Amino acid sequence: MAIRLSTSATGFAADFSALLSSKREASADVDTAVRDIIEDVKQRGDAALLDYTRRFDRLEAESLADLTVTAEEIEEAVKKVAPRTLDALKLARDRIASHHARQMPADDRYTDPLGVELGSRWTAIEAVGLYVPGGTASYPSSVLMNAVPAGVAGVSRMVMCVPSPDGALNPLVLAAAHLAGVTEIYRIGGAQAVAALAFGTETIRPVSKIVGPGNAYVAAAKRRVFGTVGIDMIAGPSEILVVADGANDPDWIAADLLSQAEHDTSAQSILITDDAGFAEAVEKAVERQLKTLPRADVAGPSWADFGAVITVASMDEAPALVDAIAPEHLELAVEDPEALFARIRNVGAVFLGRHTPEAIGDYVGGSNHVLPTARSARFSSGLSVLDFVKRTSILRCNAENLRALGPAAIALAEAEGLAAHGRSVAIRLNL
Amino acid sequence: MAIRLSTSATGFAADFSALLSSKREASADVDTAVRDIIEDVKQRGDAALLDYTRRFDRLEAESLADLTVTAEEIEEAVKKVAPRTLDALKLARDRIASHHARQMPADDRYTDPLGVELGSRWTAIEAVGLYVPGGTASYPSSVLMNAVPAGVAGVSRMVMCVPSPDGALNPLVLAAAHLAGVTEIYRIGGAQAVAALAFGTETIRPVSKIVGPGNAYVAAAKRRVFGTVGIDMIAGPSEILVVADGANDPDWIAADLLSQAEHDTSAQSILITDDAGFAEAVEKAVERQLKTLPRADVAGPSWADFGAVITVASMDEAPALVDAIAPEHLELAVEDPEALFARIRNVGAVFLGRHTPEAIGDYVGGSNHVLPTARSARFSSGLSVLDFVKRTSILRCNAENLRALGPAAIALAEAEGLAAHGRSVAIRLNL
Repeated sequence: MAIRLSTSATGFAADFSALLSSKREASADVDTAVRDIIEDVKQRGDAALLDYTRRFDRLEAESLADLTVTAEEIEEAVKKVAPRTLDALKLARDRIASHHARQMPADDRYTDPLGVELGSRWTAIEAVGLYVPGGTASYPSSVLMNAVPAGVAGVSRMVMCVPSPDGALNPLVLAAAHLAGVTEIYRIGGAQAVAALAFGTETIRPVSKIVGPGNAYVAAAKRRVFGTVGIDMIAGPSEILVVADGANDPDWIAADLLSQAEHDTSAQSILITDDAGFAEAVEKAVERQLKTLPRADVAGPSWADFGAVITVASMDEAPALVDAIAPEHLELAVEDPEALFARIRNVGAVFLGRHTPEAIGDYVGGSNHVLPTARSARFSSGLSVLDFVKRTSILRCNAENLRALGPAAIALAEAEGLAAHGRSVAIRLNL
Repeated sequence: MAIRLSTSATGFAADFSALLSSKREASADVDTAVRDIIEDVKQRGDAALLDYTRRFDRLEAESLADLTVTAEEIEEAVKKVAPRTLDALKLARDRIASHHARQMPADDRYTDPLGVELGSRWTAIEAVGLYVPGGTASYPSSVLMNAVPAGVAGVSRMVMCVPSPDGALNPLVLAAAHLAGVTEIYRIGGAQAVAALAFGTETIRPVSKIVGPGNAYVAAAKRRVFGTVGIDMIAGPSEILVVADGANDPDWIAADLLSQAEHDTSAQSILITDDAGFAEAVEKAVERQLKTLPRADVAGPSWADFGAVITVASMDEAPALVDAIAPEHLELAVEDPEALFARIRNVGAVFLGRHTPEAIGDYVGGSNHVLPTARSARFSSGLSVLDFVKRTSILRCNAENLRALGPAAIALAEAEGLAAHGRSVAIRLNL
């Protein structure tokens, strides 16, 4: 049973604050182990990768060549995928590509009134590592969500690392990689894969940025190599916030809440509604649906431990609550979702109206499903083409406009006690 | 004396690689101290801030009110600034504002061929903390470079924290804050300031992102609170790479190299040239200019320990070297800088031609001087308006196009073993 809150109840502020600060993640203390693994891969390169793969994935290999996925293996994997699934992956790939193509930032070059030339130029990161978890969390949709935007950005080298515990590799993951244009794939996982991507080994050339989800070891390793390479966000457990009025079918909303809850026992599903009777109907529908849900052992505890139903006196109260929660996913299942959305600012992805279940965005909507969790939508955004490009700012003066700007630069350099700064300008002005 | 390399010399590859991997930063181990300070501020709030300010800044205060900079203090500070300097700060502020206004990303909303509505909407981060170091590294130009883009982005609350050791506060910093529209200013520094901004205290409401430079304590604190709030990059020592042909005045180029070297004994200045005679002339000019440079005690060791002069057989060799170095600042003092720049991708800011000393960009060019250091221009960009906004992705289906997209989403949900995902779509399609 999820927690119930009402904005009209005394003590709501405290209860809501407790909900916001509830810790959903037990962060295992793996940092020392990760540090050692990274150091070992830096020192011993391929040999260390072989050792860790033997130890953690129970996979024997003589050399890195044995851990390199061949074109034939990829081809075989694609053949194993049901045509219906392959078609769905292609549709997802194409929709992600066309949505993300619109995100490509434009270069800017202009001359200001003084005649100074300024600008910004965007270029793709040359090489990116894509981490893909093994086992049950090995999702082909995540491969597309990470690799397709990189390809759209113009990243020329995409390197995928995916562990294959006991040799098992999800053919769907290879098929998704194939569809996204990834050709360099290693059967390596964990902190050792992150280390190899960041520092390189005899076989694996280093990349400049590492993206993709992973377990506590992978997350800790990404934090450690940050600076040497770029990383994407460190994602926490998934979240959904559904704002729904009483005109919705309780079963639809219950299904939406459970679609997040089934991800992880630490996932969080919250309903905000202005209709207490509807709230109760949704709660009953959740219990009913849980009975037939294959992953009820995950979704049940998630809903019981972290689920919440908040009743508001009026939908006017919703925007402030949403902004405080700053959810990863927000469904606005109300009559005029645009009007409500216009009053909300902190949210990773919004799903407007009664016919846009969040799961559409997970797969085939076209927008990215890698989104800010744990209230980080207050200050960060979902994965996009911008994560795979970087900007160079451009400045060009000629002798004339340097004369116009120079004295002010010299004045500030003096004020800051940086004489050589001033001199580099003054010397060109014969001052 | 800087190190000399030549691409024609045997052993160049090894020497160049050593140059790239030279460690310039001694990272003091302050992490335990920082953890304790943060925990203490979380627990004791204002009282802890008063204690640490007493201990580290030798500043007695009864309450946070005593550490809050008043409007009168700001006004007094502005009056103390020389008119010439104030005018220069205003010019800088205006130029930064107009350049950064061009960076504001546009919202995007469109309907795809299926009738699905998609989009991206940008909103400003609500509250941002600006850290400003105390003492000699208290630069008004940095205040502008951090605060003005935040204001352009639409950040409604900007909170500045600046330590005032022994009560001393640089009036130029307050003047710059004033010009940038910052009104909430506390005389608090170090890890305690970062903790207060991230978690809030009785007096200071928390922010969502913290930007600005700082010492090892500040950097470690920013790393620790990352996740609770956003942070900007952790900047390393400054760097300049000058690519110059023999047609330059050696004194101009020497001045440019020294303008970075004077920042920090760990700063790095590198010259690439295709003219060995010119290289020698620049080295002599550096030695000559060092003799009269006020900060020669800083610039001298920087040049001796980390400076480098690389001679190339032809400028055609330069782009690959530049991309490997991935400098924070790049000057292209050559006849056709645009042609050379077109072949280069990894650089934070470029300064084109013989009349654009990097110092112009530090102060009044208009572009930002907060730039990626330590080779991170391979994967990251300078500070911009984008650092103060976040994006919400938008999806809206109606009953009809949900029917078109739904089956593919259900197929992928099934393939990933996420039945509740599939059900949230199927239930709306009566499947």
